[in-house]
Parts: sequence; structure tokens; C-alpha cells
Amino acid sequence: MDAAMKTTLIAAVTLAALTHAHAAAAAEATRTMGEVLAASKPSDWRPLDPENTLYMELAAGRVIIELAPGFAPKHVANLRALVREQYFDGLAITRSQDNFVVQWGDPDNRKPLRQAKRTIVAEFTRPAAGLAFTVLPDPDTYAPQTGFVAGFPAAREAEQGSAWLTHCYGMVGAGRDNEADSGGGTELYVVSGHSPRQLDRNITLVGRVVRGMELLSATPRGSGSMGFYEKAEQRVPIKQIRLAADVPAQERANLELLRTDTATFADVVEARRNRRDEWYKVPAGRIDVCNVPLPVRTIRPHE
Amino acid sequence: MDAAMKTTLIAAVTLAALTHAHAAAAAEATRTMGEVLAASKPSDWRPLDPENTLYMELAAGRVIIELAPGFAPKHVANLRALVREQYFDGLAITRSQDNFVVQWGDPDNRKPLRQAKRTIVAEFTRPAAGLAFTVLPDPDTYAPQTGFVAGFPAAREAEQGSAWLTHCYGMVGAGRDNEADSGGGTELYVVSGHSPRQLDRNITLVGRVVRGMELLSATPRGSGSMGFYEKAEQRVPIKQIRLAADVPAQERANLELLRTDTATFADVVEARRNRRDEWYKVPAGRIDVCNVPLPVRTIRPHE
Repeated sequence: MDAAMKTTLIAAVTLAALTHAHAAAAAEATRTMGEVLAASKPSDWRPLDPENTLYMELAAGRVIIELAPGFAPKHVANLRALVREQYFDGLAITRSQDNFVVQWGDPDNRKPLRQAKRTIVAEFTRPAAGLAFTVLPDPDTYAPQTGFVAGFPAAREAEQGSAWLTHCYGMVGAGRDNEADSGGGTELYVVSGHSPRQLDRNITLVGRVVRGMELLSATPRGSGSMGFYEKAEQRVPIKQIRLAADVPAQERANLELLRTDTATFADVVEARRNRRDEWYKVPAGRIDVCNVPLPVRTIRPHE
Repeated sequence: MDAAMKTTLIAAVTLAALTHAHAAAAAEATRTMGEVLAASKPSDWRPLDPENTLYMELAAGRVIIELAPGFAPKHVANLRALVREQYFDGLAITRSQDNFVVQWGDPDNRKPLRQAKRTIVAEFTRPAAGLAFTVLPDPDTYAPQTGFVAGFPAAREAEQGSAWLTHCYGMVGAGRDNEADSGGGTELYVVSGHSPRQLDRNITLVGRVVRGMELLSATPRGSGSMGFYEKAEQRVPIKQIRLAADVPAQERANLELLRTDTATFADVVEARRNRRDEWYKVPAGRIDVCNVPLPVRTIRPHE
């Protein structure tokens, strides 16, 4: 018996001990994620829609955020209005709380709005009906079902119940006060630690950072309450936030994201549930929604 | 019906929909974590054992790590030998990979050892029998049971099966190469992103950062493969790592940690499973092992 076979058998026994319904998968997973992606087809990938993409320009570089109009259409519309009013330009990252969130907005809370709204109705959940929901096979602590919708990590109660985006690392939400309808997008946060899933269904998620997360996550932690910076000079200035559609084509990023409704994505999930890397001795046999990679690649302009 | 009562009822209905065994708890949780801690007794808290505490001194400040001899006795003994040989003094943080780990050790891999060993036998799991295991009530994606042992997040197959520490944010482990027994503590890492639970039972966890995590987690991400720094000047120097027992008493930190085998800790867990803060509209009714806070407080020297 060679070492790889032995590892597979040990994994299968462990999975059986965990009474896992997909034990056979351990023996079937024969590729690493890298191998799966290398064999992907062009049609497995999608471009970012410029109408649903924000570019946040910092001195350190660009953060790219994909918006989720399928879950938060009113917030996304308001965010488009905010950035077209240059609302965020000259504002700052005001908060970095370790193992929780990085937040940005108006530290003085007095920048005027024109067409955009300061508060709009909450979009914590939506009907699951009609969503193309790629279901993950493994149990989740917080929701009956988790999976992916159009590239975003999500959960739902049932096929005909409600659905919502999940607070995974890199997800972007609209801060609010105590009232449910007190947010609107003027204060945004990104999850920068272990997934705070208790926030699910309590606050409106509007999108996800797809490039440049390290420019936000490595910001020095604020020493004030809840990680707010205590001194103005500690804040990280935002040069501007623009909608990609409003940026000249030659200044746009050429990114493609792996579609989450493809066989290739299912193979990525399986490759990560049961790692084939030589390093792993006991494949987990499972994966939680926030540990599934959502591959992004840069394409050359001529492609 | 007042708003609080309404929220409680909505929460109870949601929990029932999730077929949760502890639905009644939502109605019972009447205190926030802050209120629970404010009412704690002195006996709910424990000091750090100086023989199981490391002080990692950086230019930015001190990182305090509690070691876990109950799970990794051989690694902890080797770490004591390493720090007593001043092995880490003058070495550096060499890697910061976004949403994964920060790692430190000898970038040149040539610092000599005296009594300490470079590699020792793996300590991925241990028998669950004999462990005082505080069980969490909620399902976990990766393990049949999760909970806490002597202040550390942990999992077990069953009361008589195997047990292991879980890769939550702030957990510290001993890096290794492909062979299971190729680690020993000369390379250490700390989890700095969403819990990479696929590492559980694949690598030896040796402890947990209890103070100063932000000094590690906010390090600039390395641009090399796997987040390694590509240039020597990007590394963060380690002044020294010492065992608290070897530090003069007046230079030690006066920390106390909440015992995880107390009624107060159970109340903390319940307060976080069902948030009473006015901000929350739908209490999760559940919590995963890596979202449970492990309170630490500074005591005044005369206490």
C-alpha cells in the first residue's frame, strides 16, 4: 500500500467516524485546486460588471469591491448615487477593530448629500425563491443551508424561505445605528477577522472585496472604543471611490471571477474539502462557507 | 407587546425553524456579556502560569502567548528549551499571509540549537478521556463536538475518542514541512484570519495569543509566495521571546483569564449566542467555537 492510498483510507475511516454523507468523495478528489483551475474553461469565468464594481483609491493602492444588487438592490442604487456625488472622496478609514471590521466614512458626520440618501430601508434578507443557489454539502453552525449565489457566500432557510449573504472575511456591509433602517451606505465596513456570523440578518451586506483586501485588513488597529482611531492623523485617507463604469476603460482592472454555478467551482469546493496536497495528513472532508476560496484572476487586455 | 418582547418572540420562532434544541435559551438570556462579567466572582478568574507563558518582545510592544501543555506537552517543553537558549532573540516575523497566518522564526534557517530539538513527534490529537471539556451546544462544520478545555478552544470526536485544539483566530502552532514529525517549535505561526479549521489535526497547536494580537495581525502582508516577505528589511525583528517565569516579577503582565469551566463562562456563551444588545434584531441563537470570546483582564498589582 503506498502512502497516498493509506492516507486516503485513513481519511475515509475518519470521515465515517464523523458520520459524513459524502465519505466517498475523499477517494474521488484527485486534484488540487491549482490543478482544477489550470484545467478550467474560459466560460467558467466572468468579468466584473462595471455598474456593480467600486474602486476605492488609497495612497497604498486600489481596493476593488463587487456589489451585490441581487441581495441589496436599494443599497447598491444608493451607493452608486453616493459615489457619483463623490461622497467618499476625501473621507477616511476611521476604524480598525482587531478580529472584526475595518470601517470607513465621514468622521465628522457632516458631509452633505445631494441625491443620495443617508438612510434607506434595511435589506437583511430576501426571498430564496428564484435564486440560483449552489448548496454546500456540509453542516453550518448558523444556518440550515449555506452556499453561493452569483459569486457571493450566502445562506438560506429553505428553497422557499428567506436567503441572506453571510459575514465572511472580505464581505462589505452598510453600518447602521440601533434602528434597523438607520443605515444606507454612508458608513461601510469590511469583515477583517473570523466571520462574525451573528451579524447575519442583522445588517445589510452590500458586496465583497475582490482585490486589495490586504490594504484594509493590515491597517493599524485603532486604540479607541470598538477600534476607532482616537486621533485624526491616525485615519487612513480615501482619495476617492468611483464606480468602475465611470472610470475610463484603460484605467479599469481586468479581473475575472470564477463562476460559482459551474462544475469547475464544484471541483474547487471538493478539492478544498479533501486536500490532495502532500502536506495534509487528515483531509477535513468538510468545508464551511467562509473557507471556500472565490478565485479571481487578472486577464491580459487582449484576452 | 414591547419591542424587546417582540424581538424575543421573533428570535424564538426563528430558532424553532432552525430546529434548535436550546430555543428556550433565547428567552432566558437576560444579560449582556458586559453585565455577566461585571457580576463575576474573583474565583471565576485564573492567573497565567509563568511556566506556560511566553513574552514576545517587538519594537511595537509585547505579545503574550499562553502555552497548552495539556495538548502539546512535548512541544511546550521544547519551546521552553528554545526560549531559554534565546533561540528566537534577533530572529524575525518572516511571513504575513492575508486571511491566514503570521509566522516567525529563523529566515536563514541556520541558527544553531543547544539542548532544544529542531523536530519532535507530532502532537496533532490526544485522548479525550480525562479532559474537563466544556461542550458547546451548537453544531460545528468540522467536528462532532466543540468546546473549551482549560481556556482553549477545542474539539473531540466523543468522550472516549480523540481531542484536539481548534484553529481559531489567535491560536499559535508549530510550523512543519511535509512530514508529520518535521515540526518542533522553531517556526511558529498565529492564525490571523477566518479560522482555517482544515488545519485541525494536521499540525500541532501549542497555545494562544492572549494579549497583543494586533501587533501581529496588522503586520503588512508579504508580497512573496504564501505571504513571505521578499526583502529582509520588510521582516519585523523579534527582540526576544522569554518565558514569563524567567522575567522578574515586576516586569510581568498582571493578567487574569476567565475560567472556561465556570457558570460565569457558560453565561458568557449564552449572552453571545443570544445578544441582548439593543442593536441586534435577530439573535443568532447559536455560536461557533471560534466566535466565543475568551475574556482577559488586567489586574492591579495589589489585587
